[in-house]
This record gives sequence, C-alpha cells and structure tokens, in this order.
Amino acid sequence: MKSAANAVVLLSGGLDSATILAIAATEGHRITALSFRYGQRHARELDAAQNLATAAERHVVIDLDLRAYGGSALTDDIDVPKDRTTADMANDIPITYVPARNTIFLSHALALAEVEGAGDIFIGVNALDYSGYPDCRPDYIRAFETMANLATKAGIEGTMPVRLRTPLIDLSKAEIIRRGVELGVDYGATLSCYDPPATEILTHCGGCDACYLRKKGFADASIMDPTVYAP
Amino acid sequence: MKSAANAVVLLSGGLDSATILAIAATEGHRITALSFRYGQRHARELDAAQNLATAAERHVVIDLDLRAYGGSALTDDIDVPKDRTTADMANDIPITYVPARNTIFLSHALALAEVEGAGDIFIGVNALDYSGYPDCRPDYIRAFETMANLATKAGIEGTMPVRLRTPLIDLSKAEIIRRGVELGVDYGATLSCYDPPATEILTHCGGCDACYLRKKGFADASIMDPTVYAP
Repeated sequence: MKSAANAVVLLSGGLDSATILAIAATEGHRITALSFRYGQRHARELDAAQNLATAAERHVVIDLDLRAYGGSALTDDIDVPKDRTTADMANDIPITYVPARNTIFLSHALALAEVEGAGDIFIGVNALDYSGYPDCRPDYIRAFETMANLATKAGIEGTMPVRLRTPLIDLSKAEIIRRGVELGVDYGATLSCYDPPATEILTHCGGCDACYLRKKGFADASIMDPTVYAP
Repeated sequence: MKSAANAVVLLSGGLDSATILAIAATEGHRITALSFRYGQRHARELDAAQNLATAAERHVVIDLDLRAYGGSALTDDIDVPKDRTTADMANDIPITYVPARNTIFLSHALALAEVEGAGDIFIGVNALDYSGYPDCRPDYIRAFETMANLATKAGIEGTMPVRLRTPLIDLSKAEIIRRGVELGVDYGATLSCYDPPATEILTHCGGCDACYLRKKGFADASIMDPTVYAP
C-alpha cells in the first residue's frame, strides 16, 4: 500500500519505534517523527532517535519535565531493576513504569497530528513482550482513539479522523525484529536500554528489562544481535 | 460533603478554574493545583494562578512549549479575534483553539493524580458558554475518563479509579459566578483575557471572546464585575 498521507510517528530511538518508522515509510507516508526529552535517565536514546529520524520529513523533539511528577526509576534516582526474567516481568507493573507516559506522549502526538493534518499516529506498543505497562494494551489504545476523535476540531468536523496505528501490538519481539530486518532497519543504530552506561553512545547495560527482552528477541529470531552490551 | 481525599485541580488562573478550586476546597480535598506555562500569550494568567493557589496544598507549574505545534492565536503570532458575539462563537471553532490542549493538560493531570494518589481531577470546562472548543464537551470528558482508567497502574489494579470532575459543565457563566461568589471567590484576582495588555497585571482587553463571556456573565448574574478592562 502506498499513500502520500501525513503520519506522526512516536520515535523513542528504541528497537520498536525504529521498526514502526520503517513500516510507516514503507506505506509511503509523509512522516513527522516526534520524540521527547522528558528527564529520562536514558536520554541517550535521543541520539539514536535523531539518527533514525533522517527517514522522516520532520523531527520534533519536545521538552517535558516528567521528573516534576516523580515515581519512576526511569526519571528518578531509583535503581533500574536488573536481571529479571519474563516470569518476573509478568508478575507486576515495574518501577520503570512512568505514570501516564504513553497518554502524555499520545496527547502531544494528537496535537501535532491535528496541526500537520495527519490521520495516522504510529506508536510502537507491544502487548506481548511488553514489560507489564498498562498503557500498552489494546483496550487502552482503542479508548485513546475514541477520545482523540472527540477531542479535536478535525475529529468533530469529520474532516480528519485520527487512527492509532500499532503494527507491533500482537507481535513477539522476535517477530518485530524479523519484520524490521526485512525492511532494512539497522538495529545497531537503536538504543533500548533503560540504564545505558554514560560513557558510550548506543552501548546497552545488558541487564535491565529492556535489554533482556532485546537479547531474547534476537536469540528467538535466530538473527545476529548487533547490540554492544557493556562488559 | 467533606473528605480528606487527594485531588488535582487544573488551575489556569481564570474565572472558571478559580471556581472549581473553591468547589474542591469546600469538599475538603487535599489539593494539588496544576498550571502550565505553554507559550500562551496570556502568560499573565499564571500570576493569577499563583495567587489563587494559596488555597492548595501544592502548586505544580509545568513547562510545555505548545508553540512547537503552532496553529492557534493563543500561542502564535495570529491576532486574537475581538468583538465577536455569542452567535459568532456558536458558528465555528475559533482560531484561539489550541490543538489537543485539554487532552495534553488532562494527561499531565492524570500523571500527577497517579503519583499523588488522587482519585479526582477537577477541570473547569463548560459546555454552555464554551467558545466552541471540542474538548469541552461532555462526550469528550467521559471518553477521556474511560481511557484514563485503562491507562494507569492504579486504574488497572482497581486501587484508585480516577474521576474527571466537571462541576461547571452544565452551568451558564452567570451561574458559575453566582456559585463562586457564594463560596467567597475573589474574581478580581482572576484573569480570563486571551490578550491582556502587557502593562498591568490582571487588566483585561475587554474585546476577546473570553472577556465578552466574562462581562456578559457578571451582567446576567446581576453581580458587580470587579474586572479592570483596558480603556
């Protein structure tokens, strides 16, 4: 399917968002990539986002200080949990959960979509290998879409209903990686780690939940993992 | 009704938000007031918010640059329309509409509510004298609430469902003012104007939609208008 329609792609710089960017590009969209500097300790992911965004028409980086709210290991001085297994992750919502983060990110994407006349917002959420975050589930996504179409001028006037596009939602990490490799995504240029060493760009800690799922994804897909993990 | 429950109150510094702050206080909530510095040309409303917030336990001001999106007379170099009537306002969504603004504000309120353990979020939307903004209507509010309860850890775990409290939604501006006066709100300390003169704090232009509705509200309520309008 080729179309010249405008789309907004939420681009964190991680593996999932790099894949949805490639999917949106394959569909022929004119892409505005949207990233956030939100006080994340893994702000190095923005370096990755910047590089990946060369595939987009425009890259908007919004400053948002989510540290003002607190309550997450991703933004506060709380240790990022290490060496957990999939079973551990299934049992609770982890401390790396940032309160209402996807809702805040999608709200900004909605504003940008309205201004740009974009009908599609791509977000790389994943209900399978998803670390237990509530705002990654299909029910949540549908509810946001319903709300979004009541929120905007374009939605009300019926000129531009907005669709939340979640092409990864039912895929395993291995399936995501296979799809991305087919589309030519360079996963060596992405950063998934929640707690990357300060010293080098794109080096992963290897022990946080995001690194665990990433490693496992490449192993399950039987695809060579190009990631540099800290020793 | 008295309760010691936590609540988040969206506080712009205008007439409506001053009224909901007083309503939340009367209900006995422990209040966190939330305001935004979003690139609004009427940033003077934050001076009003700061003063009003003395009634709250805590006042959080978030910096958000909505100018990055553009498309509104409230944030861009577009003239604020003047001397429109209610009939004019009923006919379209005005240029002062900021794309997805309430969605962005409510998303941040949701994050703060989750961190503070607040079950109530107060927002001073108004479906009657509402300037034609889509994100002030009851359908929108209910859709946001549904989404919010799927978005958060507390919602998922069922420990703290969130309620969007819109005590002004069915009231006319005159009824809002009467209610506020009963509760002792000092409307002379609020700022509604979209285009306040740069010279003085709390002076209103007298010609924008917000000033029109404010003036008309005091007149309809037969209550002396304490507002200083620019000559």
